[in-house]
Amino acid sequence: MARIALDAMGGDLAPQATVAGALLALAELDPAHSIQLVGSTPVVEAQLRTLLVGELAAHAAQRERLTIVEAPDVVEMTDKPSAVVRGKPNSSMAVGLRLQTDGKSDAFVSAGSTGAQMVASMMILRMHAGLERPAIVTLFPSARKPVAVLDSGANVDCGAEELVQFARLGATYVECVLGRANPAVGLLSIGEEPEKGNAVTKEAHQLLQHAGLNFIGNVEGRDLPAGGTERHAVDVVVCDGFVGNVVLKFYEAIAPLMIGTLRTAGVSAEQLQAGLKHLDYSEYGGAPLLGVKGVSIISHGKSSPRAIKNAVKAAAQAVVSRMNDQIGARLAAASEHAA
Amino acid sequence: MARIALDAMGGDLAPQATVAGALLALAELDPAHSIQLVGSTPVVEAQLRTLLVGELAAHAAQRERLTIVEAPDVVEMTDKPSAVVRGKPNSSMAVGLRLQTDGKSDAFVSAGSTGAQMVASMMILRMHAGLERPAIVTLFPSARKPVAVLDSGANVDCGAEELVQFARLGATYVECVLGRANPAVGLLSIGEEPEKGNAVTKEAHQLLQHAGLNFIGNVEGRDLPAGGTERHAVDVVVCDGFVGNVVLKFYEAIAPLMIGTLRTAGVSAEQLQAGLKHLDYSEYGGAPLLGVKGVSIISHGKSSPRAIKNAVKAAAQAVVSRMNDQIGARLAAASEHAA
Repeated sequence: MARIALDAMGGDLAPQATVAGALLALAELDPAHSIQLVGSTPVVEAQLRTLLVGELAAHAAQRERLTIVEAPDVVEMTDKPSAVVRGKPNSSMAVGLRLQTDGKSDAFVSAGSTGAQMVASMMILRMHAGLERPAIVTLFPSARKPVAVLDSGANVDCGAEELVQFARLGATYVECVLGRANPAVGLLSIGEEPEKGNAVTKEAHQLLQHAGLNFIGNVEGRDLPAGGTERHAVDVVVCDGFVGNVVLKFYEAIAPLMIGTLRTAGVSAEQLQAGLKHLDYSEYGGAPLLGVKGVSIISHGKSSPRAIKNAVKAAAQAVVSRMNDQIGARLAAASEHAA
Repeated sequence: MARIALDAMGGDLAPQATVAGALLALAELDPAHSIQLVGSTPVVEAQLRTLLVGELAAHAAQRERLTIVEAPDVVEMTDKPSAVVRGKPNSSMAVGLRLQTDGKSDAFVSAGSTGAQMVASMMILRMHAGLERPAIVTLFPSARKPVAVLDSGANVDCGAEELVQFARLGATYVECVLGRANPAVGLLSIGEEPEKGNAVTKEAHQLLQHAGLNFIGNVEGRDLPAGGTERHAVDVVVCDGFVGNVVLKFYEAIAPLMIGTLRTAGVSAEQLQAGLKHLDYSEYGGAPLLGVKGVSIISHGKSSPRAIKNAVKAAAQAVVSRMNDQIGARLAAASEHAA
């Protein structure tokens, strides 16, 4: 039932990776779902033809669930995020997001500029009541289940109330998109005890104890790769976007370091690939921008067709599970409870 | 020339690991160096006898460079750090640190409670002028040289001026203890551009440009495992102790996760051990507490004899290179420059 707009022009490997990813996604999604490829029509058409007579010839049947939505302009990485909506209203990003407010689409996925997507999503979709900025949620591979960490970079200076909002957003996302009931929420800090942490964290700890969430307390840096503490698995970890972004980029870079060291020690590339597969980011479906009224999913700039496919599938799941309505309802309930 | 006091009772594996580590260190250090084992005399003597008739029999010659300094009390992990100096003045930690202010020792090393060591070091050694609290510096293994990251957990809410002080402390440490001239200093943030980061980071970036240091600008989470940016290697990375502690604990936990995954994929334990050797923390010599007037080195609570040995060697290097005097001189020069 989901109509998913995909920014065909966004990302380092576009339009090849985006168009290929769309075809791969449709092959796996329920036939009721469709994709809108947003971009320059001749470019997208040419790419589709190339793929359908070439490596993705087996996917010709998916062509009919694809439409092309014309957007002549492209957001460049050098464009100022705040200027995209007004300066490039016909960019694939602006056009793709407006499809949602026009009722013609249910979700938007892009591997283009993260900053531009965030600002354009805020301006076009607008925020749920009570929120000022969206949070980016990223799935961290762990020894247990993947952990949803937010915020991963949209909000660098956060107050305690914002961390509580992140907890609500993250818990709803994990329930809806990952299908985990009653998700366990942890607060990233530097010790398990409630009195450990910086001023904001200590205040947030107190608020989270009475937020109606399954709050398991503080978690530490070591609990992220472990997927929880010794006593509790964790589904959602909240932190400000500065810490979240530092840890995310650290995590992305650590696998290549280890792989390099192990290759030098004589471990074969095949063994490493098999062993580290579940630490591969392209396994996960992009990073949703939570808090906007709609669905906007950020894919990594280097997204492969497989990463795009997974982001589109996550978007479909967000739509089918009515994640956005759930978020609105939860935030409204919390705000009434507080009033 | 260095007389190093070692807390014989501190750490999960004490006194076996501490006493063995002392013997191993003396075997590698210049014969002019000596070690003071601080703890319960009968316990330390018994441990020495056991080791010298057993696995470390070859180290009997080192016995004469060891003295035992009586300290009947032990700091427990449950002791409140702020109460140790007054509540347990005869603990190995308090006695070991007082040897320095009494002119009987040049450095102190402990694998006991980090919080207690920090507070006791502040109270007994006291701080250099202009500093309120010490910073903990930790060496992060990287694809290039190990990177000195500070603060790793002593200061959770930092202002921009404090980050600049950390940069001075870290640069002096790297010069003196690691022997690297003109160390490159990076500021941990969420983008290379000076305007990226939280409020404190943005202010610190401006201050660091005029601090008389070899400041290479912002570095990101990914630059820690890489040992620098594409353009610059980095020797010192400054951040507040909240972020530093989260990333440190994350780093400590990631190797076991990868090892587990790779073992499952059939990579042998021997290959992993060889490959990940340089990521092993016990290779590095503990985490100095910088800013106190003296030398106080924190070893990991789980320190093996080898980790203790390396911490003692780092302490000797700090003494020989006159790190503490250098720190005092740098801080005074910076403060005169600012006045």
